[in-house]
Amino acid sequence: MSDRALTVELEHHAYPIYIGSDLLLDDGLLSRHVMGRQVMLVTNDKIAPLYIGTVQRAFASYQCDVVVVPDGEIHKNQQTVLMIYEALIQHNHHRDTTIIALGGGVVGDVTGFVAATYKRGVRLIHIPTTLLAQVDASIGGKTGINHLGGKNNIGSFYRPHAVIMDLNTLKTLSLRELRSGVAEVIKYGLLVGGDFLALIESFLSHDLIPLNTDALYLLIKQSCQIKAEIVQEDEFETGRRALLNLGHTFAHALESYTNFERWLHGEAVAIGLYCAALLSYQLNLITMVDVDYVDALLKRAQLPRRIPKDIDIDGLYELMFHDKKIKNKSLRFVLMKAFGTCYLDETVTQAQLRSVLLAVIE
Amino acid sequence: MSDRALTVELEHHAYPIYIGSDLLLDDGLLSRHVMGRQVMLVTNDKIAPLYIGTVQRAFASYQCDVVVVPDGEIHKNQQTVLMIYEALIQHNHHRDTTIIALGGGVVGDVTGFVAATYKRGVRLIHIPTTLLAQVDASIGGKTGINHLGGKNNIGSFYRPHAVIMDLNTLKTLSLRELRSGVAEVIKYGLLVGGDFLALIESFLSHDLIPLNTDALYLLIKQSCQIKAEIVQEDEFETGRRALLNLGHTFAHALESYTNFERWLHGEAVAIGLYCAALLSYQLNLITMVDVDYVDALLKRAQLPRRIPKDIDIDGLYELMFHDKKIKNKSLRFVLMKAFGTCYLDETVTQAQLRSVLLAVIE
Repeated sequence: MSDRALTVELEHHAYPIYIGSDLLLDDGLLSRHVMGRQVMLVTNDKIAPLYIGTVQRAFASYQCDVVVVPDGEIHKNQQTVLMIYEALIQHNHHRDTTIIALGGGVVGDVTGFVAATYKRGVRLIHIPTTLLAQVDASIGGKTGINHLGGKNNIGSFYRPHAVIMDLNTLKTLSLRELRSGVAEVIKYGLLVGGDFLALIESFLSHDLIPLNTDALYLLIKQSCQIKAEIVQEDEFETGRRALLNLGHTFAHALESYTNFERWLHGEAVAIGLYCAALLSYQLNLITMVDVDYVDALLKRAQLPRRIPKDIDIDGLYELMFHDKKIKNKSLRFVLMKAFGTCYLDETVTQAQLRSVLLAVIE
Repeated sequence: MSDRALTVELEHHAYPIYIGSDLLLDDGLLSRHVMGRQVMLVTNDKIAPLYIGTVQRAFASYQCDVVVVPDGEIHKNQQTVLMIYEALIQHNHHRDTTIIALGGGVVGDVTGFVAATYKRGVRLIHIPTTLLAQVDASIGGKTGINHLGGKNNIGSFYRPHAVIMDLNTLKTLSLRELRSGVAEVIKYGLLVGGDFLALIESFLSHDLIPLNTDALYLLIKQSCQIKAEIVQEDEFETGRRALLNLGHTFAHALESYTNFERWLHGEAVAIGLYCAALLSYQLNLITMVDVDYVDALLKRAQLPRRIPKDIDIDGLYELMFHDKKIKNKSLRFVLMKAFGTCYLDETVTQAQLRSVLLAVIE
């Protein structure tokens, strides 16, 4: 096991990330990070029939309650939060309870927020079951819900006590969801460049995404390492952590504009990555060859890279600049000078943004 | 000013507590702890007409928005939280906004929770305007709301960036509210004993509570010092901080049982302090003379010390033990071995609790 565990080292609080096969069958591992005698398992209606029994078995001698929340980004909201609070209160969960988030990014974000705010904070274990949640959402302690149309408008930073990734859970993932996760992996590749980008390239050289191979394990492990290293350096996103938002200024606007119903998060990120590449090109930072490389990589993963023409660019543009009335506020974009060399830019003009959006539409 | 500022020293985050007269007139002091150009002032309908103009003046050159929430513990809830979120979103407040809580404990607790959870945490300044909020609620970073009948069921630990106490605001406080604050001061006196308890005794030797005197300043300053010192040592209440709950196990049950409508928090604490004294006596920890001393001190402050007979003791008792079905869970009481020597006890039996409740009813 030890060769398959990373650690996120934060001041006064380090937490382990376990990555491997059959980890959900390891009762000792699951219960190792529970302290009291109470466990609240939060999962969604898609995951519940697949894995809930397995996880419950590890807690046969505990008070183990379950709350099943509806699936999907549109349910990452206050209502779902209240539903989990209610289950906790109804079953008398105390300050020393442990909440386990079993599912994808939505379950993780909502459950993390509940763990951060129930009784001023209780223990939290993430068991991410999607590629996207494994390589991104479950690491770094960001929790949040969407409120009044804004993505992650409400949330907090809250550190989990452990993250357990069972690679087997990826086998039940739809191809669409798997690809959505690959978008975040590609993001890491563009951020760090070099060998990792080459690894992704070779991974995507197959016609199908290879599951249950050492390649996938390596991809997840290295993605987690990249994210953990950045989080360790800048937990509260006062600086470098913002680079993880490569492609996300576009992605969040696209998701918000379509009421979180049209794309999976990773799909919106894929379009955003292409937009970020094109913006970097228009600012003379990278070449068109680089832009084409990004495009080809995303295409290989069968991810969307263009804004469909039924999206009203004026409306999207308006949404992105909706805070323009605030003085001293400009949009922040992560731009690429080269693969592996990204930086935060606050000087993009409205005209430049508009020109990119118009070029990306199809 | 410097002689009237304390500092709470927490790892990686120290915040000042300013105590003095006319502080709300000091524009420089108010704006010193604001970083961006946006301020959201949260206050209640009682405080707004009295002080909002004064505070707004200090932020004439900022985007300064105001949200007025309803007054009272019954409004320390999710609905008020949503009301403040909505104002923030409507006025486009960013991650670098500063939220100012201007009011008593309810405004402080709710606003603190919003600051902790809006955009994963924004700057927070407390301007407590009641004695209770000054000596207790505004210090130590506890935020919270009541949910589904449970006091502070939802909340988080979140450190303010500054606490500003203007003694002048106490002049507009009702006598009932002032007394409610004195209950928490008496609690500190029982916790630390010695000179501070003597100071409280002399303070209460007058027929009226003396406002705007050096005595009141001293009382507030020393209360803040006592609390700050405990919080510095045990911010997340894993140990010693729990002593601050002296009288509160009873108080919370009384408040919850009466739907937070019958007593001000400090009044419930006063009854709770008497109950705690009597419980300590019944366990042979202190003498009846000690119990009478506590009773006399609370009486001097014209605070309630008995449970009115229309309260159903069985119901109250049931409420306090409502978690009895959870194994390994007992009620925790802070008990007194002497004034200045309190400890956390988890061995109180149901029979002992019942006997105290029956003795305190009148």
